[in-house]
Amino acid sequence: MTQLTLKVEGMSCGHCVNSVEGALKQLGASAKVDLGNGSVTVDFDAARLSVDAIKTAIEDQGYDVV
Amino acid sequence: MTQLTLKVEGMSCGHCVNSVEGALKQLGASAKVDLGNGSVTVDFDAARLSVDAIKTAIEDQGYDVV
Repeated sequence: MTQLTLKVEGMSCGHCVNSVEGALKQLGASAKVDLGNGSVTVDFDAARLSVDAIKTAIEDQGYDVV
Repeated sequence: MTQLTLKVEGMSCGHCVNSVEGALKQLGASAKVDLGNGSVTVDFDAARLSVDAIKTAIEDQGYDVV
């Protein structure tokens, strides 16, 4: 498994956590949002999922990967 | 119709807006959240719905009516 931590702007509450973590779970990744520092840590299989797909999934939920 | 404006803490994003407005809609009220000043304006029929029921519905969504 590969671990990636992204800075993400706009996540502010538990609903945002659920949106982002849920979207990444749909892709087969395991994600943990840290609201305090505005980051998402993602564990994923780099043979099956690209970093771009992860970023797109987060952005599709309405947040900015910075 | 009666109009009531409440100060509510903890609403931070569009998901929060949907939670609060949706919960009040379920009660038969019409609500509008203003995230900028942390308020909810509710139009309701005072013969059918109490202020306490409105406050409880908001608190049940996880927010504090102050």
